[in-house]
Order: sequence, then structure tokens, then C-alpha cells
Amino acid sequence: MEYSPGFGDVMVEKVYGVGVGPGDKELLTLKAVKVLKKVDKIFIPVSKEGRSSLAYDIVKDIVEGKPVEELLFPMIKNQECLKIYHERAFENIKSAQGEVAVITIGDPTLYSTFSYLWRLLKRDNIPVEIVNGIPSPFACAGRLNIPLVEGREKLVILPRGEDLERYLGLFDTIVVMKTKRLGEILKRILGKEERDKYLVGVVSKGFWEDENIQWGKIEEIDFEDINHYLSLAIIKRVDREDI
Amino acid sequence: MEYSPGFGDVMVEKVYGVGVGPGDKELLTLKAVKVLKKVDKIFIPVSKEGRSSLAYDIVKDIVEGKPVEELLFPMIKNQECLKIYHERAFENIKSAQGEVAVITIGDPTLYSTFSYLWRLLKRDNIPVEIVNGIPSPFACAGRLNIPLVEGREKLVILPRGEDLERYLGLFDTIVVMKTKRLGEILKRILGKEERDKYLVGVVSKGFWEDENIQWGKIEEIDFEDINHYLSLAIIKRVDREDI
Repeated sequence: MEYSPGFGDVMVEKVYGVGVGPGDKELLTLKAVKVLKKVDKIFIPVSKEGRSSLAYDIVKDIVEGKPVEELLFPMIKNQECLKIYHERAFENIKSAQGEVAVITIGDPTLYSTFSYLWRLLKRDNIPVEIVNGIPSPFACAGRLNIPLVEGREKLVILPRGEDLERYLGLFDTIVVMKTKRLGEILKRILGKEERDKYLVGVVSKGFWEDENIQWGKIEEIDFEDINHYLSLAIIKRVDREDI
Repeated sequence: MEYSPGFGDVMVEKVYGVGVGPGDKELLTLKAVKVLKKVDKIFIPVSKEGRSSLAYDIVKDIVEGKPVEELLFPMIKNQECLKIYHERAFENIKSAQGEVAVITIGDPTLYSTFSYLWRLLKRDNIPVEIVNGIPSPFACAGRLNIPLVEGREKLVILPRGEDLERYLGLFDTIVVMKTKRLGEILKRILGKEERDKYLVGVVSKGFWEDENIQWGKIEEIDFEDINHYLSLAIIKRVDREDI
């Protein structure tokens, strides 16, 4: 039997997960611009109803007049409760007409709110296409004017600073995506002499008007100033001969 | 004493390190297009004189008529010998007039030929600006239609498969940038039962006409087919409840 949609049974044709990069409009890809201009609707994840969305701020000039709908992803820890919000957001997308885009800061494959929806879209066999955006660790390295890794170096990306002592000795470069408590952690696990083996770059709200960029030894960084949720740190070992 | 350049003493004003992404022209950023159109010259790293450049193939329609110059980075292992090529490439850039761009596949901060020049440019206080491109691990995850990491997961990026056994237990997702011998390594370090704990995605020449994409269990992947230098693998643990 063929599927024949009736009234109230409309299903979205295709969902684009679009990364809009770290904050600079010019870091949008040509494909992101094309897709955002052609879709029938744009979904915008927000953490609170009516709160402005950084992702939308990046694209709003490009998509002026296009229908938009917010998806509520509150910043709560209760997984069961979060699932309800994810399912609700998913139902909203599913019942949209035509092709739609869900926008996300940075890249949809790296710690993105899109990944929760992605799983549900796949479960229901709804076509998904990813349009990559510049991921924030790379944009921040560019902003700091340093390579993340070269040659035979190894890179690790951690969602936050926990268990950092396990990774510090193993890798040339460590990216910590949220810097809350990072200063405290680094000072706890590294003795005074050991701290000189590292250089740290921290970028908070990179590419936005109120960006805060620091690069230096652990002692020189003002970690208090970088508690914004759009902050990250790049920790590089400098005690090796070839650095 | 002020620096006054004389004849034959021209020095480049600014160097842009421009990432052109993984291969799809549409994954260029708006900024990359703008910069490539405005610079006075484009430098193209090549591994052999006269050999076509994948990075240039991506941008050639955009920069038609623009002066280009090849920079020779041969694929040799002798570090002393390589240094001579880097210095020579650097001298060519340094003596160019106006603003120039050096293009690189993917992103300039991730295992890029640009990083060697970057060091020399900084040493001589020549202004450098990075224009990020979509890095290949993220583009390949998009192509495979999978997130790289979500929630509290940790990601590691390795330049090749060596020491892989050390990292397999520590990370949710491992990216191996060059897949040569990867099949062999995985089968050596993982017993038959352990292999089922992982799913592997391999992308060779992603976004090019002759791309090869595979996703499945270790036993199902044809590793022989993915020896191209533009190949990478994404190894994901699937034995955890929440995946």
C-alpha cells in the first residue's frame, strides 16, 4: 500500500542541518547561504522562548522575510525532561511543509543541538543533509594566529575540563569547549614549574563585538573573564624541541 | 632608523592563509571567495612541479585570470631537505608585492602545509590572517550523515593509525587522517568480539567525482580501496548504552 498523506498528515520533505559558523557572517559557506535562501522555513534552536538566538543573528540579513520558527531546547540537566523537548521540536519539524533548515552555531557534527533531532529524523527515515559550518576550535585557532596541529601532532577535543590530567601528557594540543573552572583545574593539576610547559589560548565570544581573546602562559590568563558559554580554550605543549 | 625598502627589496604586505575546504566549491566561505578575488597573487602548494593542485581545482573558476605561483613542497621525509623547500617557498612569498593568499585544502590550522610558512612569516613579522575552511573530519562526518561528538563525548584526531590501541578505549570518536594500513592495524589490535564494539566510516576523496564512502563494522569495510592520501576514517564506539 502506498503512503497517501491526508489532511493534517503533511510530512516535511527534507531537513538541512546547517552550520552557520562561529559568529562572523563572512564565515558562512556558499552552500549555507544557498540552502537558507531556498528552504521553505528556518528552525532556530533557542534556550528560552523569545530569547535572541546567536545562530539567527548570523543569518538574519540573508534570510529576511523567510518564515522562521523557534525550537525550545532549555538548558536543563534532567535527561528525561530534555527528551520531551527534543520530541516536541522534532514533531514541529516533521509537520512542516516542503524543505526546511535547522540552523546551529559552528558545525552540526560537533556538540550541536542538531544531533538530538538528527537521531529522531533518521529513526523516522526523514531525509537529512548536513551543510557544514566552520567549527569553533578552528576559527579560534585562526583568531589566535596559531595552528592547532601540524605534522605528527595529535589533537583532542573535550567538552569541558574534567579528567584533564589524563589527557595533558598525551596530546600536543587540547581543546576545551567550555572554560568554566578551567583556570582552577589547570592550577590544581599542574605544579608551578609544570605550568611553564604550556601555552593557553582562550577565546570568548570570538568574532562577536564583545570578543575576548587571550594567549599566554597559564599564570597570565584571566580565566574569570571567560565564563561565557561560547568560550573555548586551546592548550598547547611548548616544552618539546620542535615547537 | 626607519625601514626604507629599495629596489629589489619589496616585501609582501599581508599573507592570507586560506582554507578552501574538502573539495566541494560550495563549501568555500564567503570570506575565502572575497579574499581570493581581492589579493594580488595566489600561491599554490604542489608536491611536484607542474602537477595539478586539488586546492587550486576548487577555486580556479573563482580566481580566473589572477596571477598564480606554485610553491614546491615535495613529499619527502628528510627534515633538513624539507626545510630548504620551506625557506625557498617563504622567500617567494616574501618578495611578492601587495597582498597575497596561500591556499590549502581543508583548514589552515589542521595539518596544513601552510603551518610551515606560517612560522617563518611570524618570525619575520609579516602580517598573517587566517581564513578558515571546512576541515575534512567534519565534512566527512556530514557526508556519512553522523555526528562526530555529542553531549559529553570526547574526540581525538590522529594524523595516522599508529599507537591506536592507546586511544581506542579513551575516546568516543577517533578520527584517523590517513587510512593507510588502518584495516590491518584495527584487526591486529582488536579481537573478533571487540571489533563489534565499533562502527567505522571511511571517506576517500570525499566531495570529488571519484569519492568512496563506506560505513559499517570493521569486517565490512574494504580498506584496500581507501589508500588515497585524501582519505580519513571515523571510528565510533557503539557498545555504550546511550549511542
